[in-house]
Amino acid sequence: MSRYSIGLDLGGTNLRAAAIDESGKVLERTAGSTNLSEGRDALMDDMTAAVLRLRDSQGISTLAGVGIAIPGFILMKEGVVTGNPNLPGFENFPVRDEMQQRLGIPFILENDANAAAQGEKWMGAGKDVNDLAILTLGTGIGGGVIVDGKVLHGFVGMGGELGHMTVNPTGNPCGCGNRGCLEKHASATAVASMARLLALGQNLTAEDVYHMAMAGNEHAKTCFRVMGQSLGIALANLVNIFNFPLYLLSGGMLGAWDLFSPPMFEEIAGRSFTYRATKPRIEKAVLGNEAGMFGAACLSFLK
Amino acid sequence: MSRYSIGLDLGGTNLRAAAIDESGKVLERTAGSTNLSEGRDALMDDMTAAVLRLRDSQGISTLAGVGIAIPGFILMKEGVVTGNPNLPGFENFPVRDEMQQRLGIPFILENDANAAAQGEKWMGAGKDVNDLAILTLGTGIGGGVIVDGKVLHGFVGMGGELGHMTVNPTGNPCGCGNRGCLEKHASATAVASMARLLALGQNLTAEDVYHMAMAGNEHAKTCFRVMGQSLGIALANLVNIFNFPLYLLSGGMLGAWDLFSPPMFEEIAGRSFTYRATKPRIEKAVLGNEAGMFGAACLSFLK
Repeated sequence: MSRYSIGLDLGGTNLRAAAIDESGKVLERTAGSTNLSEGRDALMDDMTAAVLRLRDSQGISTLAGVGIAIPGFILMKEGVVTGNPNLPGFENFPVRDEMQQRLGIPFILENDANAAAQGEKWMGAGKDVNDLAILTLGTGIGGGVIVDGKVLHGFVGMGGELGHMTVNPTGNPCGCGNRGCLEKHASATAVASMARLLALGQNLTAEDVYHMAMAGNEHAKTCFRVMGQSLGIALANLVNIFNFPLYLLSGGMLGAWDLFSPPMFEEIAGRSFTYRATKPRIEKAVLGNEAGMFGAACLSFLK
Repeated sequence: MSRYSIGLDLGGTNLRAAAIDESGKVLERTAGSTNLSEGRDALMDDMTAAVLRLRDSQGISTLAGVGIAIPGFILMKEGVVTGNPNLPGFENFPVRDEMQQRLGIPFILENDANAAAQGEKWMGAGKDVNDLAILTLGTGIGGGVIVDGKVLHGFVGMGGELGHMTVNPTGNPCGCGNRGCLEKHASATAVASMARLLALGQNLTAEDVYHMAMAGNEHAKTCFRVMGQSLGIALANLVNIFNFPLYLLSGGMLGAWDLFSPPMFEEIAGRSFTYRATKPRIEKAVLGNEAGMFGAACLSFLK
């Protein structure tokens, strides 16, 4: 009988989980909202319930393990998440060991963008390559790098923090302590913040700015041009560093692809000899908001 | 009987070669100057002679293969070097296949900085880690990345071009088409060029500027401070991307370590959360100008 694993994605809004077999076929899905306001114990209970539901339905004998995709820095050895102020009570809390103890199943913790990279490699846009990098363009910008089919973790587990690459040394200050991080110039938050500086309005979302740009507003278009150029600087660096065949973009900001991608490609082509010489693919990811869940499920098969 | 391989480093000035056994012990060395002015055929003959000398002396039966470290972009599949105007007649010339045909031994071509990374991993400062990155600080800046003990090549072989990371989007124009490449702000050439702009003198070498800085000249010190800050921006990016345990610096500019490393470390610490949280080692490489030769020799054992 074919093995399956459970992938769980603990997002800021939704808690997604699925039982997925080794061929990548989803056997069963479950989803709910993430009740961040109810605190850590409620979240742990929600995750436990989701896993139990899938396990009871699919059986314990063929379950390879559970992967959890979670935002923040992951300490792989400890199975702990750190540096995520949006997850109340999780800082240095032994999520992995606590879940394993509750359920008697092996758990793996993984950063959400790393899991998305693994998911796209396994069942998405990166199926036909062994090496890729992904940028997840949302409120912030996450990153994940796949080398030889697996997540590049580094020695602690913090590898792939691509959203904190410097694209402008004297740019916007970031919560990480740096100035000019990619996510301060190319995320949804960055677009909204530029719109404010350009006096387009005080409480605009990136989506509002998108609609203004589509309606012809030049200042709104500028926001997406700067976003594209900033992405281009970061991607040119990644292309020079990795010479990978594939770089993926995902997340809510993909909707503005037609606005930001032309200046992005122009910047990459101008800045990277390796890009011009080797023509890697730079494309939209395809698994949408299920990439992290797929990646989390995949982890138990790769061990 | 223990196997050995031959490592050959074709530098701009010297042609080094050695027979090295699997434990990293140098069995025999040979060196000469690189006669670039005599053209490709003379260089091919010099390389052939060096390999023959070592092979005849050490025997053919235990020879695993020959590695050649060479500056430029390497197309791994083709065994060809490209993009190096200093190697006359080598552009797209089938170096590897031609050498194999001449000598009937398997050859591997590798970029010089990638080979240096591999050498330091094998027998140098990186012996105790599986993952590292190196920056070679010379006339230009080369780079090499080791993942899981081996050179990260990318899909063509151009991986690790760390000298062309953008450290200043509006910075100095580079021959690669970019502006603000690391090597335009932190190489020996960059330091000499800054010294010229700061009116320190027209025909100064980086070494002249070093001596002026050591004698207290503030403008000369500024050149090395900018060099250190530029390296810091690049290294902070690498730390955020890789979370490796070790980053190495090598090359002729290491002599100015005391001048450029304090601002470099300050910049890294300010810009990289991952650096502050995980304390990776950022150190001088130890194999000096033999790193590429060691790395080239190592390649035949890794196949």
